[in-house]
Amino acid sequence: MTDGVTARAPAHLTAFFAPEAADDPARAGATGGGLALADGIEVTVAARAGSGDDSHSGREPPARDATGGAGGSPHRVTLNGESATVAPVTGVLERLDVPPARVAIDAAVPVGAGFGVSGGATLATAFAAASRFGLARTANTLIGAAHAAEVAAETGLGDVVAAARGGIPLRLAAGGPTHGAMDGIPGQPRIEYVSFGELSTPDVLGGETDRVTVAGERALESVVATPTVEQIFRAGRRFTERVELADDRVRETIEAVESAGGEATMAMLGRTVVALGTGLSDAGYDAEVCSVDPTGVRVLSDG
Amino acid sequence: MTDGVTARAPAHLTAFFAPEAADDPARAGATGGGLALADGIEVTVAARAGSGDDSHSGREPPARDATGGAGGSPHRVTLNGESATVAPVTGVLERLDVPPARVAIDAAVPVGAGFGVSGGATLATAFAAASRFGLARTANTLIGAAHAAEVAAETGLGDVVAAARGGIPLRLAAGGPTHGAMDGIPGQPRIEYVSFGELSTPDVLGGETDRVTVAGERALESVVATPTVEQIFRAGRRFTERVELADDRVRETIEAVESAGGEATMAMLGRTVVALGTGLSDAGYDAEVCSVDPTGVRVLSDG
Repeated sequence: MTDGVTARAPAHLTAFFAPEAADDPARAGATGGGLALADGIEVTVAARAGSGDDSHSGREPPARDATGGAGGSPHRVTLNGESATVAPVTGVLERLDVPPARVAIDAAVPVGAGFGVSGGATLATAFAAASRFGLARTANTLIGAAHAAEVAAETGLGDVVAAARGGIPLRLAAGGPTHGAMDGIPGQPRIEYVSFGELSTPDVLGGETDRVTVAGERALESVVATPTVEQIFRAGRRFTERVELADDRVRETIEAVESAGGEATMAMLGRTVVALGTGLSDAGYDAEVCSVDPTGVRVLSDG
Repeated sequence: MTDGVTARAPAHLTAFFAPEAADDPARAGATGGGLALADGIEVTVAARAGSGDDSHSGREPPARDATGGAGGSPHRVTLNGESATVAPVTGVLERLDVPPARVAIDAAVPVGAGFGVSGGATLATAFAAASRFGLARTANTLIGAAHAAEVAAETGLGDVVAAARGGIPLRLAAGGPTHGAMDGIPGQPRIEYVSFGELSTPDVLGGETDRVTVAGERALESVVATPTVEQIFRAGRRFTERVELADDRVRETIEAVESAGGEATMAMLGRTVVALGTGLSDAGYDAEVCSVDPTGVRVLSDG
């Protein structure tokens, strides 16, 4: 992709959330709190060869153009090198009227395990596409389009606005940038995580949204009252207990970190445990180490 | 300052602005647009020796404690190594009830030349002090306190919220985080600048605020309609002409960059010209080179 532009979004681990429904996907979403991680999602957007745009890359195999893509979309998407269908990514390209594009998503975190890969990929796609095709949109317009595409595709509720901000984001009001309201906890602590795999979002939330909403609102109130990174973990742990989404392995791991004197909680929604500082390694786990990303979404390179 | 915490804020060059008065300094401020620069302001905050706090540094000369400080403030401030009185910095320490502190401000940009040093120093002071003394405040609370301190000290109207965001900030509604509204232009282009010295803010704005307001509002409208970095410069140039704040040297320099095919404008309020890409060096100037800072304010180090 020699003619591509790369943008980067942090991964986002949700510690707790309260969903808010609305007919307009720009108003729907979730309040909540979490961590934006320096381990992130990089997306390169280029013009599709033979699409009539100004692409000068001739390296796309002709067979791929001939076979067409998912749902008749003019765009071609890969995730970690494999051809993929990522509904919110295609959705945001359509919302922004992007010409036929090749989109290469590279995730430095596990997919489907609560790291907000779909939201981060959608957000980074919007910023890379706007730069590559000279769309001349403001940051809020791009974030809003990515948020609406993610909500409409039912792949997430709040990762886009959180990943756009970076840091330790608090979503005080749900929705895209025009409707939602953000705050955050200052600081960029060391973070550790272990992941045991996927948790299917529709399965876990079927019919349980009232309990989730009440637990999520209480968790956010407690963090607004005591705005520290430790309280993000404590509120997340209480939320995890109330919504009963942790399986034995996740629960055991959180308890092991607590027993070793550390702070840990579950990533919503995935079989992932995240800890502050050296919490997981102190408890004997072979954890991934990263830091909080202070920046949020950004365009990395042109040309 | 072995017990100090360092925070960093980008310098902020205002391209155009429209002041908005209000009795409450949290609501007062300015709309406008500008550039947050990677050349920034670093502030280290430590406990004052002998203040009864937990400081373990014994290196503060006793004479300084004995002589007392500016206006009876319990805090001691240095700017680029020299003892200094910086009213909004002392002001934000008071607003946040910070124990007696030593504050060392290091600016990588010229002071008093339109780089928002007072706003950036005030903002970084708030974040460093909150981390050093474990104040447990959210980012919006710290930004709001810094904004109110800056407005109350009459040293600036919009640099704090702009520097907090980073990037290429657009201030759509004036005031601190609770009242104001931000957007931005995506991207981190290369920037060049030359500075010819100070311009006194009270002098230039005496009685001229209506003209400034009208010109600033038109400039912001034009950038919202065409949200590109080039338009920031074009709108800034038209604003500069309308408010008649450029002296001959600034005007000549902007014209030289334009003649060489580049984009340049004046930093409000200083005798500084800022250009996009290689605009100033293409026009034969020996310019400082830096980039747009994508992050905004952040805590750099503890301990």
